[in-house]
Amino acid sequence: MNNTYKHSLSTHSKIEQISVNRCFDGEQHYYRHESTATKTPMTFSIYLPDEALAGRRCPAVMYLSGLTCNADNVTHKAHFQQKCSELGMIFIAPDTSPRSRDGQDVPNDERYFVGQGASYYVDAMQQPWAENFNMQSYIVDELYDLLRAEFPIDSIGITGHSMGGHGALLLGFKFPSKFVSVSALSPVCAASESAWGQAAYSEYFGDDKSLWKQADASQTIADVGQQYPSILVDQGAADNFLAEGQLQTPKLQEACEKAQQPLTLRYHASHDHSYYFIQTVINDHIEHHWRMAQMG
Amino acid sequence: MNNTYKHSLSTHSKIEQISVNRCFDGEQHYYRHESTATKTPMTFSIYLPDEALAGRRCPAVMYLSGLTCNADNVTHKAHFQQKCSELGMIFIAPDTSPRSRDGQDVPNDERYFVGQGASYYVDAMQQPWAENFNMQSYIVDELYDLLRAEFPIDSIGITGHSMGGHGALLLGFKFPSKFVSVSALSPVCAASESAWGQAAYSEYFGDDKSLWKQADASQTIADVGQQYPSILVDQGAADNFLAEGQLQTPKLQEACEKAQQPLTLRYHASHDHSYYFIQTVINDHIEHHWRMAQMG
Repeated sequence: MNNTYKHSLSTHSKIEQISVNRCFDGEQHYYRHESTATKTPMTFSIYLPDEALAGRRCPAVMYLSGLTCNADNVTHKAHFQQKCSELGMIFIAPDTSPRSRDGQDVPNDERYFVGQGASYYVDAMQQPWAENFNMQSYIVDELYDLLRAEFPIDSIGITGHSMGGHGALLLGFKFPSKFVSVSALSPVCAASESAWGQAAYSEYFGDDKSLWKQADASQTIADVGQQYPSILVDQGAADNFLAEGQLQTPKLQEACEKAQQPLTLRYHASHDHSYYFIQTVINDHIEHHWRMAQMG
Repeated sequence: MNNTYKHSLSTHSKIEQISVNRCFDGEQHYYRHESTATKTPMTFSIYLPDEALAGRRCPAVMYLSGLTCNADNVTHKAHFQQKCSELGMIFIAPDTSPRSRDGQDVPNDERYFVGQGASYYVDAMQQPWAENFNMQSYIVDELYDLLRAEFPIDSIGITGHSMGGHGALLLGFKFPSKFVSVSALSPVCAASESAWGQAAYSEYFGDDKSLWKQADASQTIADVGQQYPSILVDQGAADNFLAEGQLQTPKLQEACEKAQQPLTLRYHASHDHSYYFIQTVINDHIEHHWRMAQMG
């Protein structure tokens, strides 16, 4: 049973507070706002340590979630709050796509790896997706600016899990001026070479595979070269999606070697793709982004 | 997305493994078994640190969940795994009641605080409840013996949240030979004096209020006197159920004073009744049970 109450951090003209819960020495907030990028309402969660609640600028990390998830999964199950409370770090969890609600019908697909919950954080170029599925613009422009306007954010790092790990690698290297640090947990490393990503990109971009490559994380890293002092990637060695070829982890290693981008890639014996793995490694990611923010 | 695989800890004659996930240096398991106490299938989760997986006897803590919950809520949201991994502690989460499933129709009530998900961990004496709602016998006899037979458990402490906090206090003081330690988070402290508990007990015990008193945690503590070196209770000061009188926390203080039972009762400013509060204090509870197990 969640007990929520209203708490106004500041004058939020564009965002509506849904809930506030005290958690460690900070507060877990949820917000809703009308997005111009997706032409739908969007929700996100943000953990604000007491330093931020007191108005002091703090480093932030944005976490992009994986297929089928929304902001709830990571907010409830990843247990980032304790470490963020200790360090004084802000943690932001956007939704994974626009969604049908309030009578608005957003395009979808029966497959869990295409459509709602499966945006891949790109700007779709084909209909029916192009109308609402503009998650790259949403993340790196609209939400990014909104967060900086409404919360005392010093710098932003980007991370994510699975499809969201691909989004973090892709957006981190496409927009290095926006982010001070990049990491990923169990990421899809090359969407254009995984069955999940191929299904999604054929919908979002059509048959022109040069467009797929421009939205492929490993290809982007290879193309743009080193952007960060180091990036951290954790992967469960018993992850069945790794064995299935959905994640294409060696492609990331090759790309980083080509780009001369320092990469710490750790395989964890017996660990799988679940939030039990995410909670096992999340503290290391928060500390990675914290250290990079201090360097910046 | 959860990725589960089978892993056999030992020869489990009476319990069937549902899932195993690696988490920190240990494994989160789920089991299902046929209960003679409730005459239904029952499920529970158990976190086994590597020491236990290697067959070494470890202290355990059993966590009784609150109204509307099952084992999933605490297993996903409380974040006990990291501390249990560090200390080498087993964490057991039973369900909150028998449930209708597999075509079996178990009694229920429209109110969320009576019936399925709301057993109060007592043995009901009135029909239709008495047939299946024997959760006291399930916890302190059947599940207790089954756990000791199937897992390398050294000693068992008991804790819980809200209704489950009442269960932990009640069963801990009714059966002190079974448990080495007691704690509670945001507990209902006196079921017979809270509106939730009165509704449940009038169903489970009928109108004889002497039976309610025998199943009241604070009354039981006052009656049996000191049983533990100390008990730990954490309470959110902004918990709306505290303000509503459902928790009756001062009754626990009075009972412990009468019983000369040392009590550490901590109120936490701004914290509510949610799992965000539970995760904030759970490490202290695991450490409490760990210390008590070392003393025993």
